[in-house]
Amino acid sequence: MRKCVVLLSGGLDSTTALAIAKSEGFEPYALTVLYGQRHEVEVEAARRVGVALAVSDHKFVTVGLRQFGGSSLTSEVDVPKDRTAHDLTEGIPSTYVPARNTILLALALAYAETIGAFDIVIGVNTQDYSGYPDCRPEFVEAFENLANLATRAGSQGAQFLIHTPLSNMSKVEIIGKGMELGVDFGMTHSCYDPDESGHPCGRCDACLIRQRAFAELGMKDPATVDG
Amino acid sequence: MRKCVVLLSGGLDSTTALAIAKSEGFEPYALTVLYGQRHEVEVEAARRVGVALAVSDHKFVTVGLRQFGGSSLTSEVDVPKDRTAHDLTEGIPSTYVPARNTILLALALAYAETIGAFDIVIGVNTQDYSGYPDCRPEFVEAFENLANLATRAGSQGAQFLIHTPLSNMSKVEIIGKGMELGVDFGMTHSCYDPDESGHPCGRCDACLIRQRAFAELGMKDPATVDG
Repeated sequence: MRKCVVLLSGGLDSTTALAIAKSEGFEPYALTVLYGQRHEVEVEAARRVGVALAVSDHKFVTVGLRQFGGSSLTSEVDVPKDRTAHDLTEGIPSTYVPARNTILLALALAYAETIGAFDIVIGVNTQDYSGYPDCRPEFVEAFENLANLATRAGSQGAQFLIHTPLSNMSKVEIIGKGMELGVDFGMTHSCYDPDESGHPCGRCDACLIRQRAFAELGMKDPATVDG
Repeated sequence: MRKCVVLLSGGLDSTTALAIAKSEGFEPYALTVLYGQRHEVEVEAARRVGVALAVSDHKFVTVGLRQFGGSSLTSEVDVPKDRTAHDLTEGIPSTYVPARNTILLALALAYAETIGAFDIVIGVNTQDYSGYPDCRPEFVEAFENLANLATRAGSQGAQFLIHTPLSNMSKVEIIGKGMELGVDFGMTHSCYDPDESGHPCGRCDACLIRQRAFAELGMKDPATVDG
């Protein structure tokens, strides 16, 4: 089996991306990056998903992005709440973390090179947040090009591939695909601003996008049932 | 003055790169990345250099690369000692850290975007370690291309530039340039394997390259005088 490194936040997207990678025959190694936005509940969600989907190994790496701030996820700025579906498509939200996906992919590349993997899976998609620059296909292509120049393996002829299995899927399609693959979304966590006991706020962009997608499917978000 | 972010390890190269950026009229912001190889003595060297060269701000960011290992700098593998000048030009040494410069530049990019800087300075050079893939000009160009796609600023038309002022300089030329700019190399630290009190081992690649360069200039390495 061909190894791959999956960037796993424990949210809905990265969990589905992991399930897809498994269904395609990859042996998954999970990487969860704790960059200063993380609440313990999110780390636990990532850990649960890793166990449930039987990853071969799971690394948790801390990066102190709170040093820089510049995002409502890594500073004391409030995350936006109660935005309409239209608001969500407007511009780049304050939850944008400068260079986040570049940092996540750089760490995944380091992990991949140390375990002899050449495939990296990231659950970015362009439909929900068309504004995030580091979710665009041209960004992903540029990183792939970089990866082959940046590494010992690449300089010796290996070809790294960055897989974005969700790139053109809507949230509804992602949920549908995940359910088809047997994912229990009750174990995932997406909220940007959970309360102290870890319950999702239900009002941030991440919560609203989930709720609206599950509602469109005639379902209630299983992560919010029984808290 | 135009702000720049300088990746500052506290070694001879990054210190000279910082001095050059200042001499070119940049207002420098220093970033020291603690990626698991760092001894307290190295952090202190970076801090001293930042103070001596009057950087406008100095961030220290920790990244847990020991999670991955894969390098004699981030694992318990011994760093090579007593290698000849010829050995040093052969292949990629065990001190290569997978994806290191990609990670360093990604973090510098995050810092730059949060402070509104578009210039990043990294002290890579191709002469001493021709083997390190992530010191090559084509790597740096690929990162520059990536930076403009990865960021809010780049997607809105800003142009990030990665400066490698040392790229074609030998260690002797770097020391000469640093001295011309008034750098006190006694405050820098390059050793991969200092003893518990912080003294350089004198036998690792980093020490040997320094010693040989100072010897070629008819000098003793000021960092080793009086310990």
